[in-house]
Amino acid sequence: MNIDLHGIIPPIVTPLKNENEIDEQGLKQLIEHIVAGGVHGIFLLGTTGEATSLSYQVRKEFIEKACLIINNRVPVVVGITDTSVRGSLEMAAVAKKSGADALVISTPYYLPMSQQEFVNYLNYLTPKLPLPFLLYNMPGCTKMHMSVETVKAAYQLGAIGIKDSSGDMGYLYALQEAFKNNPDFSVICGTELFLPESVTFGGKGAVPGGANIFPKIFVNLYEAAVNNDLNKISKLREIVIQIEKKIYNIGKDNSKYIKSIKCALSVIGICDDFVAQPFERFEKKECDLLRTNLHELIETYPEIKAEFNTLKTT
Amino acid sequence: MNIDLHGIIPPIVTPLKNENEIDEQGLKQLIEHIVAGGVHGIFLLGTTGEATSLSYQVRKEFIEKACLIINNRVPVVVGITDTSVRGSLEMAAVAKKSGADALVISTPYYLPMSQQEFVNYLNYLTPKLPLPFLLYNMPGCTKMHMSVETVKAAYQLGAIGIKDSSGDMGYLYALQEAFKNNPDFSVICGTELFLPESVTFGGKGAVPGGANIFPKIFVNLYEAAVNNDLNKISKLREIVIQIEKKIYNIGKDNSKYIKSIKCALSVIGICDDFVAQPFERFEKKECDLLRTNLHELIETYPEIKAEFNTLKTT
Amino acid sequence: MNIDLHGIIPPIVTPLKNENEIDEQGLKQLIEHIVAGGVHGIFLLGTTGEATSLSYQVRKEFIEKACLIINNRVPVVVGITDTSVRGSLEMAAVAKKSGADALVISTPYYLPMSQQEFVNYLNYLTPKLPLPFLLYNMPGCTKMHMSVETVKAAYQLGAIGIKDSSGDMGYLYALQEAFKNNPDFSVICGTELFLPESVTFGGKGAVPGGANIFPKIFVNLYEAAVNNDLNKISKLREIVIQIEKKIYNIGKDNSKYIKSIKCALSVIGICDDFVAQPFERFEKKECDLLRTNLHELIETYPEIKAEFNTLKTT
Amino acid sequence: MNIDLHGIIPPIVTPLKNENEIDEQGLKQLIEHIVAGGVHGIFLLGTTGEATSLSYQVRKEFIEKACLIINNRVPVVVGITDTSVRGSLEMAAVAKKSGADALVISTPYYLPMSQQEFVNYLNYLTPKLPLPFLLYNMPGCTKMHMSVETVKAAYQLGAIGIKDSSGDMGYLYALQEAFKNNPDFSVICGTELFLPESVTFGGKGAVPGGANIFPKIFVNLYEAAVNNDLNKISKLREIVIQIEKKIYNIGKDNSKYIKSIKCALSVIGICDDFVAQPFERFEKKECDLLRTNLHELIETYPEIKAEFNTLKTT
Repeated sequence: MNIDLHGIIPPIVTPLKNENEIDEQGLKQLIEHIVAGGVHGIFLLGTTGEATSLSYQVRKEFIEKACLIINNRVPVVVGITDTSVRGSLEMAAVAKKSGADALVISTPYYLPMSQQEFVNYLNYLTPKLPLPFLLYNMPGCTKMHMSVETVKAAYQLGAIGIKDSSGDMGYLYALQEAFKNNPDFSVICGTELFLPESVTFGGKGAVPGGANIFPKIFVNLYEAAVNNDLNKISKLREIVIQIEKKIYNIGKDNSKYIKSIKCALSVIGICDDFVAQPFERFEKKECDLLRTNLHELIETYPEIKAEFNTLKTT
Repeated sequence: MNIDLHGIIPPIVTPLKNENEIDEQGLKQLIEHIVAGGVHGIFLLGTTGEATSLSYQVRKEFIEKACLIINNRVPVVVGITDTSVRGSLEMAAVAKKSGADALVISTPYYLPMSQQEFVNYLNYLTPKLPLPFLLYNMPGCTKMHMSVETVKAAYQLGAIGIKDSSGDMGYLYALQEAFKNNPDFSVICGTELFLPESVTFGGKGAVPGGANIFPKIFVNLYEAAVNNDLNKISKLREIVIQIEKKIYNIGKDNSKYIKSIKCALSVIGICDDFVAQPFERFEKKECDLLRTNLHELIETYPEIKAEFNTLKTT
Repeated sequence: MNIDLHGIIPPIVTPLKNENEIDEQGLKQLIEHIVAGGVHGIFLLGTTGEATSLSYQVRKEFIEKACLIINNRVPVVVGITDTSVRGSLEMAAVAKKSGADALVISTPYYLPMSQQEFVNYLNYLTPKLPLPFLLYNMPGCTKMHMSVETVKAAYQLGAIGIKDSSGDMGYLYALQEAFKNNPDFSVICGTELFLPESVTFGGKGAVPGGANIFPKIFVNLYEAAVNNDLNKISKLREIVIQIEKKIYNIGKDNSKYIKSIKCALSVIGICDDFVAQPFERFEKKECDLLRTNLHELIETYPEIKAEFNTLKTT
Repeated sequence: MNIDLHGIIPPIVTPLKNENEIDEQGLKQLIEHIVAGGVHGIFLLGTTGEATSLSYQVRKEFIEKACLIINNRVPVVVGITDTSVRGSLEMAAVAKKSGADALVISTPYYLPMSQQEFVNYLNYLTPKLPLPFLLYNMPGCTKMHMSVETVKAAYQLGAIGIKDSSGDMGYLYALQEAFKNNPDFSVICGTELFLPESVTFGGKGAVPGGANIFPKIFVNLYEAAVNNDLNKISKLREIVIQIEKKIYNIGKDNSKYIKSIKCALSVIGICDDFVAQPFERFEKKECDLLRTNLHELIETYPEIKAEFNTLKTT
């Protein structure tokens, strides 16, 4: 039960051929790509993984297949939160059976919840879990921002960490301060941009969506932060900012983030760019722009070029 | 395919014995109670029905059992929206097979959506639906407030109406104005308090959670609005306000609304007060207060007493 | 000290020649226009009056000149709220000296305030006021939505009423319910669209910005509501909705509301359309569209034509 | 016109004896305290300075007196934003005449503004300013979050920098990135906690309210950031977090921040703790707790003790 969560833990996309079918070849290539990049763990079925858009059947198959491919090379954490508690527990059972290392618990996301109600829910749910769990704070999707007190209550219930995707750096620091004497609790940053600060001052790592495409960049940034190498941080952060500008920022609306990562993975030959409803993959125009921008980044930054040494981009 | 949605269409609670078992006796009694109260339709698996908290299995059973009991005495509409489109379509198929009359479509509620993205989603989903559909605007839960333009686009796709639970009366009027020349589109009010205004000026009806407990009160209020009987409206509205104060307002947090309705139904002997996770039923103290308040209302208002002539309250 | 606030109380615009000079001729014509329209009171220096954009000097002159022209024909209430309490008290003194009937108190609008802090502020301020006061709930500008409890506390301190511009009809009803047995407290509606509902069920009147241009329409709508004349309400409400669509809805951003009213007043020959910084009057294109729309409304609705019998529109 | 804004620029409180009278002795002591602490500039009439709560007369006197005492030892910037453009320009003239170095422009804070409307306003206002200006982004008070594009437009109009108090670190980094090649534009951090990150990666300094009490702590933290001394940063940041917990966090509501700083300054013998309406100074109980906490901090951290070597705390 001793899982050490730290470093770069990409929230992997769920490669799909269509609504009901996993792109298995793509999944295999994706996992090999990021493991080769040196990542320290893998997060299945997060927001970037389109978990809530998938049927239970697809979610279950995905956990099984991904765990099989990963084959214990790095720790695997699995998002299980559903609005239905039975749904959550079913996913937890599959994760356990497939050999995953920990579960990720967010807030049931339809009915608005208070802090106390969420703590009550954790009291009900967590004793039934077959694996260690960490929290996932994602107020932009769940409408609920876990207070530091709530996170402390979860720690009492056995939580081994939290991934914070609130985008609120003051809050992230408050978490790190609150748990600085608890080495058995990992505060993990969900905002790519805050990775170096977070790690420099006590955070354990990050869950960057961009590490699907550029695992080494983020692994190197993490190591630069661990080593307090400010020059390297500064250089790599600039690349991260350019990635945000040139890749994630194509298209419109919030869904562009998922679409652009899947599109980029398709461009570099990793997997299909199919996006599950309620969204759809990029149209050709957006995809072409992304391809152009990606090639530009490859030409500009040797660090990015190094990511794709063995890959053939279209 | 000619369904005339109007009047009082209670969003019925889902009576449960536990997380996985429907309280069938309770469901039967609930339906008889509200049909006896004169309601004009029944809405299954809305927010009051805790749809998102239930497993697919329970949702499916509930649709089947409820339709069987209702037995075409009034039109039945069924909420099918899930974050997964496959989940939504499965519920739609069960609703069709069970003899329901229409489907209710809300916004997939985890990933934030733009208006255009929701319209795209409707374009994908609605041609696959086996029954007519209406929209359900519930921004407090879904984070998305359907614009009038979006509702018009849905109408072009075949929507037969909208239930608006935004609580924004200006918006409700804007909808009624926009569709005043479209008798095939029903604007239905989801906020109990606005029922008389809405109906007086062109709205077709309401979906009041309180009609689970007090169906006649709401049916009478609807008829008073249809008949422009301002004295009666004024008198019944006062009762509705008292119900809100004395029943829904017990306990804390948003979930008190669902808890209090189930508790009241238990007090009047209709069904179990079990509430599905992530919430829990009232504790004894809250339930006792609700019982006291309900008896007070019964003593104060003959209209409320009349609701329970044939029922024995605890 | 016995002021009966009810009916249509237009929040008049502040006609200006430039940032520092009142358009006196325009002010005179505006007041004659709305008094001829049968309004029941006049509200100086509200949001529509651009109070916060004006220097103290201009605000003071405006109070003096307006009171002189109104000459006690209808009650006058004056918005005095400033972020500085000294500023508020200076305006209060000018209002008293000029013969105004009551003061309007909003929330100091820069630093965010809690309910309790606002009540404390009222405890400090209101004993120093030389005239009766009413509250002005305007959360869109002040960031603070006065709770019903706060309004009750203000009533204990002597408040004679509240103008609610929250746009939240549930709240407006809650206020009317809370004060239904207090005839010395007037709940007044700040949202034009809600005027008939509010008045039908216990509200005392409205403060409609559109009554600067169309005073008779709103006076007639008020009277229809008082007389429960639903046919007339329905007909006049349609006109109000058309006014919103065709007049207020020109241009962009929130400021279009003030700009469009001033532009319309200029088109009908009442006063200058100068708008104080931080905003600016409409550009020619927007003004031309407004003129076209206004003429269309005049041709379509005899009730609007009647407003301008004695006026020459450009 | 060559002003180099960088380092620690405390937003000083406005010491008051009462609503209308400046505590001159306190002001003198405050300025000597922070200049002795090594600050690099002083910001008059910001949010911490209660600018909007003060009458014009007090604001003007304050600018004059503060500039006289500072006597060009460090650059002085003056917040001038008022809802009335005339009010803003009057303050600007007084600042110029008193020898201040630059003006600080925020958004007029009553009427909601769009980005474009704010840019239009800057186009109108800034050519009339007698001194260089910087922006002040304070959406929590003004309801408007200046976009990066808006800040770029202001730079074209001559802005020499921005103080960002949004609390949004992603935005702060985006600003720093946008202006990294513009040495004539200073991005200055308004959130104490983000000072080291901001400065480490290109920010020019900070405007920390706590530097009223602890100027040396913040000056040292700034220098540690400039020197990339991570150990020192880590140690001083812990102190800043403790200050936040033990000093600012006393009392309730947002106003506790201003109240606690003034109370602490009173406890260390610098100035009166009078707080202008709409707020009030701490009650005795809160003040006693703050005193106890402050003494605890002094005993715990030699760095804090060093701040008050020459001061006698009560």
